[in-house]
Amino acid sequence: MNTPSALFVDLYELTMAQVYYDRGMTAQAVFELTVRQLPDGWDYLIAAGLDRALDFLEHLRFADDDLAFLSTLPQFDQAFIDQLRNLRFTGDVWAPPEGTLVYPHEPLIQVVAPLPEAQLVETAMINQLAYATLVASKAARAVDAAAGKTVVEFGGRRAHGSEAAVEAARAAYIAGFEATSSVEAGRRYGIPTTGTMAHSFILAEADEAAAFDAFASRYPGTTLLVDTYDTAAGVTNAIRTAKQRGHGSVGAIRIDSGDFLNESWQARIKLDTAGLSDIRIVVSGGLDEYRIAELENANAPIDVYACGTFIVAPTDAPTLDSAYKMVEYDARPVAKRSIGKPSIGHRKQVWRSADTDYIGLSRDTGPANTVPVLEAVMRSGRRLAQEEPSLDEIRTRAAAGRSRRDIQWLDSIQNFPDRT
Amino acid sequence: MNTPSALFVDLYELTMAQVYYDRGMTAQAVFELTVRQLPDGWDYLIAAGLDRALDFLEHLRFADDDLAFLSTLPQFDQAFIDQLRNLRFTGDVWAPPEGTLVYPHEPLIQVVAPLPEAQLVETAMINQLAYATLVASKAARAVDAAAGKTVVEFGGRRAHGSEAAVEAARAAYIAGFEATSSVEAGRRYGIPTTGTMAHSFILAEADEAAAFDAFASRYPGTTLLVDTYDTAAGVTNAIRTAKQRGHGSVGAIRIDSGDFLNESWQARIKLDTAGLSDIRIVVSGGLDEYRIAELENANAPIDVYACGTFIVAPTDAPTLDSAYKMVEYDARPVAKRSIGKPSIGHRKQVWRSADTDYIGLSRDTGPANTVPVLEAVMRSGRRLAQEEPSLDEIRTRAAAGRSRRDIQWLDSIQNFPDRT
Repeated sequence: MNTPSALFVDLYELTMAQVYYDRGMTAQAVFELTVRQLPDGWDYLIAAGLDRALDFLEHLRFADDDLAFLSTLPQFDQAFIDQLRNLRFTGDVWAPPEGTLVYPHEPLIQVVAPLPEAQLVETAMINQLAYATLVASKAARAVDAAAGKTVVEFGGRRAHGSEAAVEAARAAYIAGFEATSSVEAGRRYGIPTTGTMAHSFILAEADEAAAFDAFASRYPGTTLLVDTYDTAAGVTNAIRTAKQRGHGSVGAIRIDSGDFLNESWQARIKLDTAGLSDIRIVVSGGLDEYRIAELENANAPIDVYACGTFIVAPTDAPTLDSAYKMVEYDARPVAKRSIGKPSIGHRKQVWRSADTDYIGLSRDTGPANTVPVLEAVMRSGRRLAQEEPSLDEIRTRAAAGRSRRDIQWLDSIQNFPDRT
Repeated sequence: MNTPSALFVDLYELTMAQVYYDRGMTAQAVFELTVRQLPDGWDYLIAAGLDRALDFLEHLRFADDDLAFLSTLPQFDQAFIDQLRNLRFTGDVWAPPEGTLVYPHEPLIQVVAPLPEAQLVETAMINQLAYATLVASKAARAVDAAAGKTVVEFGGRRAHGSEAAVEAARAAYIAGFEATSSVEAGRRYGIPTTGTMAHSFILAEADEAAAFDAFASRYPGTTLLVDTYDTAAGVTNAIRTAKQRGHGSVGAIRIDSGDFLNESWQARIKLDTAGLSDIRIVVSGGLDEYRIAELENANAPIDVYACGTFIVAPTDAPTLDSAYKMVEYDARPVAKRSIGKPSIGHRKQVWRSADTDYIGLSRDTGPANTVPVLEAVMRSGRRLAQEEPSLDEIRTRAAAGRSRRDIQWLDSIQNFPDRT
């Protein structure tokens, strides 16, 4: 979870860089990372991952052992290795601050740097920004669906590695999740941590009632997992523990299997009948925004949705359809025309009004009553101090107006793509 | 990409551990990580990720700053913090060696350790093993579909973070991919690295022909990307470069968009007509085993398939449906009966014959003419030296017999689940 090494590149970025240096092609390039198309049914993205992307740029250094490895490859000569030894990222970066709503074709990051530098960071920029943005956007949909109910993140084990687990917890928190089960994410990012108990805890004890009593006595107000053997009997045991240990001893029950609508109503009625209407109901297992919306539409008496798998590795969007493309070189707009995957040349800016985004050239003046979405976040390789907002500031930004926006292309750009 | 910290746990693993210690529940537990169900259409899994999982276990230590953070949480008392300070993983581990074919209900790892230790490592074991196994298994399907053609991995940018990128490259290599674009994976694991050129390289030059000439002159035998503007014209330019620079100057062309079947035939015919039948054709973009099989069935003249997105973050299986479940505690078999997600108690072994796997109790004797699949890989917290095969040994193992196997449950276990 540290900043990736300078070798976190695809080989071709290095071979291209060597040719660029050989040929003196170090003029300024502009690269933009954009999402070409939203996953089906999605209305927006929540920008996330910028903090780590900028860290990577600011700390980019080829260490001695990086260079020693490159020397073993047939592609690179000593002059290039020496060039890499002194390479620092010296460019400017513009981006929507984390937590900003972003739409297709709008840059998640715009890198303005000498061509070899801008090229070399391609893999890291896509890798670090696309996943965080994916999770923040998916998680925001779950928060929207939960309609004010609490949503928490339990997905660490399902994430693609430990780095993904922690970054997913951060992205979900940005999107409005209230807590994570990941202790490392709590330590690293100050995200509230939460958890209940596992089935194994119940299985290790003589019986479920003994397990509940042991846990509630150690953690008053805890959440008891009721579905290990039989959910109805589990709720009865939880009620017994709550009654025996008194008010506040049991904060919630968790249901992790079965028909959540039916099970939650059965549990709610039993708890209320027992005078325990302050005990909350947590559900977990297979939850995404569609399942949450179903349960909310059916008026399920669920207080907390714990989401894992489908937030950290979404089935409907395991990745975002994104690309990091050069749009200008040496002040000349450029674009590829590849079938089905054309890029759109020119360095861009996005202007936002209450209901419309306008995409135009960065040198355009934005329409009246709009604000620019891309902000300068790095100058000459140094982060701009004012652009390191707290996680809670980012989270507040992400909570603002998630309605669909029209996207319009300003006249200056709409006849693009063309290479001239 | 270093070993995750000891805080790579879900909070509940720590709260449960504290109660286990409080109550003296440190008897031996057996946990097994299994995949409940294969993704649709899949016939097998390729076990991967064990090396990192064992590293995590062997190096598990709560460092001072880990403990300092835990002290700030309301759940933990000083006695427990002190206990964690001295905690080491002291258990035994059994597993199929990496590269082994694995089927549903067969343990990917079996952890035999005092209950708190076995519980604490749950998140890390699932996280490290499930993703690597997922990618190795998906990649193996692509290798199968390619029917002897070369398959390489270009997915680093699409992976969920830099750790996932490198581990995916390793897993794909285990499955039979021949190279990766990830330089870090090359350095870390000795995997051959490969790459071509990006569209930006073409765009930065005055024109495509100049770009091709620059690249081929620096890297004789390289691969030229021909679809930036127009694939047919790109092939013509590649032919010109190859003719001008002579035999061996251009090794391959890459097509990254359009109809691969049609484009590859057009290119093949042009290249052959020009007497350049030794120039190979690489395709990339949106490839998975289904697309590869289509192209192979249509007899596409493609020599190399470069796979990215759909190998490192498969659409049909963003995660594996796996669970790390306690199956014995203090010599007593245990299982949960949760609706739709029951576990199967008893410490298990798998015996493999030429066409059938038998799952039984670890204390069973395997059927005649079978070999056990789970091997001892760690004793008392130390890796067994002979169990650190080279990546190429693992790869060779993974290449062996991928046909579907029957799975049978031995009499001793088939009436499980039951708790008694």
